[in-house]
Amino acid sequence: MGGPLSAIPGVAIIGCGLIGRKRAASLEGARLLACADAVPARAQELAGSVPGAAAIARWEDALLVPGVEIVIVATTNDALTPVAMAAVEAGRHVLTEKPAARTVAELDRLIAAARAHDRRVRVGFNHRYHPALLQARALVDAGALGPLMFIRGRYGHGGRVGYDKEWRANPELSGGGELIDQGVHLIDLSRWFLGPFTSINGFAATYFWDMPVDDNAFMTLRTEGGQCAFLHVSCSEWKNLFSFEIYGRDGKLALDGLGGSYGVERITWYRMLPEMGPPETTSWEYPRGDQSWSIEFAEFVEDIRQGREPNPGLAEAKAALEVVEAIYRRSGYLSGSRLPTPDSRR
Amino acid sequence: MGGPLSAIPGVAIIGCGLIGRKRAASLEGARLLACADAVPARAQELAGSVPGAAAIARWEDALLVPGVEIVIVATTNDALTPVAMAAVEAGRHVLTEKPAARTVAELDRLIAAARAHDRRVRVGFNHRYHPALLQARALVDAGALGPLMFIRGRYGHGGRVGYDKEWRANPELSGGGELIDQGVHLIDLSRWFLGPFTSINGFAATYFWDMPVDDNAFMTLRTEGGQCAFLHVSCSEWKNLFSFEIYGRDGKLALDGLGGSYGVERITWYRMLPEMGPPETTSWEYPRGDQSWSIEFAEFVEDIRQGREPNPGLAEAKAALEVVEAIYRRSGYLSGSRLPTPDSRR
Amino acid sequence: MGGPLSAIPGVAIIGCGLIGRKRAASLEGARLLACADAVPARAQELAGSVPGAAAIARWEDALLVPGVEIVIVATTNDALTPVAMAAVEAGRHVLTEKPAARTVAELDRLIAAARAHDRRVRVGFNHRYHPALLQARALVDAGALGPLMFIRGRYGHGGRVGYDKEWRANPELSGGGELIDQGVHLIDLSRWFLGPFTSINGFAATYFWDMPVDDNAFMTLRTEGGQCAFLHVSCSEWKNLFSFEIYGRDGKLALDGLGGSYGVERITWYRMLPEMGPPETTSWEYPRGDQSWSIEFAEFVEDIRQGREPNPGLAEAKAALEVVEAIYRRSGYLSGSRLPTPDSRR
Amino acid sequence: MGGPLSAIPGVAIIGCGLIGRKRAASLEGARLLACADAVPARAQELAGSVPGAAAIARWEDALLVPGVEIVIVATTNDALTPVAMAAVEAGRHVLTEKPAARTVAELDRLIAAARAHDRRVRVGFNHRYHPALLQARALVDAGALGPLMFIRGRYGHGGRVGYDKEWRANPELSGGGELIDQGVHLIDLSRWFLGPFTSINGFAATYFWDMPVDDNAFMTLRTEGGQCAFLHVSCSEWKNLFSFEIYGRDGKLALDGLGGSYGVERITWYRMLPEMGPPETTSWEYPRGDQSWSIEFAEFVEDIRQGREPNPGLAEAKAALEVVEAIYRRSGYLSGSRLPTPDSRR
Repeated sequence: MGGPLSAIPGVAIIGCGLIGRKRAASLEGARLLACADAVPARAQELAGSVPGAAAIARWEDALLVPGVEIVIVATTNDALTPVAMAAVEAGRHVLTEKPAARTVAELDRLIAAARAHDRRVRVGFNHRYHPALLQARALVDAGALGPLMFIRGRYGHGGRVGYDKEWRANPELSGGGELIDQGVHLIDLSRWFLGPFTSINGFAATYFWDMPVDDNAFMTLRTEGGQCAFLHVSCSEWKNLFSFEIYGRDGKLALDGLGGSYGVERITWYRMLPEMGPPETTSWEYPRGDQSWSIEFAEFVEDIRQGREPNPGLAEAKAALEVVEAIYRRSGYLSGSRLPTPDSRR
Repeated sequence: MGGPLSAIPGVAIIGCGLIGRKRAASLEGARLLACADAVPARAQELAGSVPGAAAIARWEDALLVPGVEIVIVATTNDALTPVAMAAVEAGRHVLTEKPAARTVAELDRLIAAARAHDRRVRVGFNHRYHPALLQARALVDAGALGPLMFIRGRYGHGGRVGYDKEWRANPELSGGGELIDQGVHLIDLSRWFLGPFTSINGFAATYFWDMPVDDNAFMTLRTEGGQCAFLHVSCSEWKNLFSFEIYGRDGKLALDGLGGSYGVERITWYRMLPEMGPPETTSWEYPRGDQSWSIEFAEFVEDIRQGREPNPGLAEAKAALEVVEAIYRRSGYLSGSRLPTPDSRR
Repeated sequence: MGGPLSAIPGVAIIGCGLIGRKRAASLEGARLLACADAVPARAQELAGSVPGAAAIARWEDALLVPGVEIVIVATTNDALTPVAMAAVEAGRHVLTEKPAARTVAELDRLIAAARAHDRRVRVGFNHRYHPALLQARALVDAGALGPLMFIRGRYGHGGRVGYDKEWRANPELSGGGELIDQGVHLIDLSRWFLGPFTSINGFAATYFWDMPVDDNAFMTLRTEGGQCAFLHVSCSEWKNLFSFEIYGRDGKLALDGLGGSYGVERITWYRMLPEMGPPETTSWEYPRGDQSWSIEFAEFVEDIRQGREPNPGLAEAKAALEVVEAIYRRSGYLSGSRLPTPDSRR
Repeated sequence: MGGPLSAIPGVAIIGCGLIGRKRAASLEGARLLACADAVPARAQELAGSVPGAAAIARWEDALLVPGVEIVIVATTNDALTPVAMAAVEAGRHVLTEKPAARTVAELDRLIAAARAHDRRVRVGFNHRYHPALLQARALVDAGALGPLMFIRGRYGHGGRVGYDKEWRANPELSGGGELIDQGVHLIDLSRWFLGPFTSINGFAATYFWDMPVDDNAFMTLRTEGGQCAFLHVSCSEWKNLFSFEIYGRDGKLALDGLGGSYGVERITWYRMLPEMGPPETTSWEYPRGDQSWSIEFAEFVEDIRQGREPNPGLAEAKAALEVVEAIYRRSGYLSGSRLPTPDSRR
């Protein structure tokens, strides 16, 4: 335990729903050895589709399967922290889905455990690895926009019949609604470009769905230097939408779409000229989908090999959860605190 | 004074810049008798283009030209209230450009004067009369969206070289920056759909331009029922943008563009079906421009003839300015208070 | 034979590939009794998914299964006519995929057989039942465009690796390339709006793919009244495209997309005003997909019940094939003439 | 006569309508000395706006003004050749608007005169110098598309009330309708990319306007190697449209818009990948308008200085007119042949 990673690392996946299966399909250079799910059939189906993988009845046992070096936690939110903690305590490195925990307090326990056991924990803010975001990052780093001023983000979907009866609507399981679900992506992306937020304003509300968690959240986040992220997330957005606009003194980037029902992913660069007037405009589209899950996993393998701190990791998850919690607190939402049982994320 | 309006009302225009000339071109059913401007050549040019119109050296005299029943005030913001007050005191009805005053206190004096002299005062929130807004109003009134939940608005332009040396950058003349300029339109439109705002959050900032007024403002406004208007206005928007999105329980309206450099005006109606999933989608485009100035003026003539309170009028202007002032106050901006000389709006 | 259709008609499907399976999923009000395929596993898979359906080894036997009243022929082009003929000779009504035959001569035999046995034969030009086409038909019928002048059509896809090794690249199996595949749709739609074509110009060519059939065809078709259909079909279109533009004296309809990889289906109506200038513009989008297969099948059931001639039926298929053949003849392509074995359409 | 061009060449403009004035505004590095128009007021207005320029009553005299080295001919089509011929006979170099002549025979006389007097004649196919076309040319020359296969072009506008009473509707003045007006641009652009056309098919028709010239033309042009240009031009297009699509074995370029009422100019590059599927997609937009007139004039100055043959010049105009004439001939249109008087182009 604690030695260098194998050439072909062994992986266990806890939570074999939609997300767990996507993770299993994005493990280039590694091999799935074990998987577990609260619904045994789901684990068996996944294991059956990967040579060498075994479905394990108890998730605690899956962590201990010999050769498992990396544990992917793709459960409902309530189980993310307990499973990740057990994994690091068993000496495994962990890739956990966002938000990594339902509360900051919960996350702090995982942070302590990871530090105590010297294990790497990466948090699945996979949006950073979408092609338009990678292109945005490269353009900003190259100075294409000059100093950044503010960001606008809109992210949402329209749910589906019965959405308010699913696990995300149950605060015990989810820790919250739309803000802790899609909101943490926008918060993380904004912080990635602007830096830490020292001023947090906004509110969450339940406008449409019949559920005790929020379905909309509006945020105005500011850095110490006064830069602003003006963000809205919604599961009453009706027409699926992802829009992320980054403004600098010298230009603007507009990102739209994430593929699939969110529309073709595209980034447009508006470059101001000294004489001002309409900006020079260049667009890139990514109709071939994203490799975000594969890139993210490969990055994690490199984190472990190089002994570097995953980014986004626990610090980034904590920063996002601090925003979430501040807004939930002032909006009158309470998050669940009871002991969870790990079910897979759908 | 106070008798019924003539069949063809006489009009005086104070401020013969870009906006004054647009007003002069939108006076169907009325006739321009007099105009005045701090720059005499501008008044002469306008008067020369309209048979029967005279350029008057002093604006105070233009109000008193026999036959003038309606005064249009299209000056810089500092002169809007003084000129409008003098006009109502001379027994004229007034169509004043938004924001009608630089501060609520200034506006209150005009409100008192209009009441004392029983004159109608309309405020030029012409956006309400753009074709996409008229269509939105009709759809909402017909129940197409069901109960409204929230509105998102984004409105901005990219300025031009030297923008920070123009009158809008001088708080004495303007009363503020982007928020009091384009912001009042978004505030007024949002209030038109959602009703009065009882909670005002947000801030204004000067990110780009070298001027003592704001170039960006971010607002989170809420009604007593919790509906939200989430609004951003900017004169560092780089690519001119008007976007106004209205969400109800049963669907969404997305308005884009205002013609010209803002792009073709368009409204898209997304109608949710009981089975949910992608909404039914219908769009209307208005490539033929807007008649907003003409409709607005015709509405004002009807206001006067029917003795009805103009809407948008002083109450709507006050509601918008209260938002502006609240945000300026908490953002550390101070508005000018010195006596103005009326210059035309460019 | 020849009696009235059952309340719930029995159906056999010959050819259980992609298209056959789509047909099986669009049989509301009917029941699948039998299916057959040159690859037995395909028939078994389809039969296994529909209660009451049986996989039959020989397609000739499938036609004779008691209770079968409608036969759907979804084979490669070479087998369409032989199977359809055998079906009508067995007293069945037939819904055959377009182009219904590889040549006019082949089709004429089917026409004679259908007449001799008094059976209805519908041809699967399903594009007519896409929502944008239905809307176009309704608008044109209501006079929205005034008298029609011309149509432009562009339809194409980019193939896939190995496309030139598939059955469509083999003239024995297909009767031709892109023109007889996607081209017949554009020809049929154009004729539907403009009427019969009395002048046929154009050519087919093989630009890209290594195959003995065409991958592009350019057509200029004219009616007796001089109206024109200007059509291009391509399987080197690279970015999947469906565009169909209908011009009348009073306006234009632009149809784009067919869903899926062709983009969201949309129709835009440009209505000219007497003062000319930019037209009034209304758009409808259909993000929920099309019901064309179901509507088409329901129409066929009505054809049979009411004893009406299917439209599109054999006459429409013949009109399209006459265009195809004229263009192939002058472009130097020869179509296959050998006896086929029925394989399913993929 | 015939010596090297002055450092700041002197220019005369014959025809001071819309196009003549645009030319006058695009003469960087040269100076306007003389102008003439059939309507003297137009010449006087233009001359009055340019220091050093004189309005000359007779166009023949304008050519002879001392210092005039370049003559720009921006008249109606009937006068293009006579004026250009007189100019070259007077030893001037000539930039003439497209189509340079109403017929090939007429143009041949100009070609002979230019050769006899050794003068350069450039023809104003300015579309080649639009930014999207320049970008297309650069991409094609760099091999981005691989070998070219075919081009589709659609170009048109919706006219205006009374369009059929304007000079373009009079064959004596215009030589033809839409085909000789906008059509020559598409023909020239297609030939620029594909090379000479050895097969010309198509027809012109008068569908909408009450005039003796064509309002629509459909073309299928082929090179010796079989590459195809499939082109449609229309002045019953209703919604102004410019679309030019270039297909190569490795990708596609789609050009849309020309600015103004044709929409923002844009080029999209679809690059095929070896694994096929959706292409890589990059777009560039040109919201700042085009510099085509200035670039074209600067190119002409270089033509003269370097003694090189203008391209596009008389050979390119002849190639375009040969296509026009072939299509007019088979469509039953006759072009005017009477002697013209030069009126300016509007």
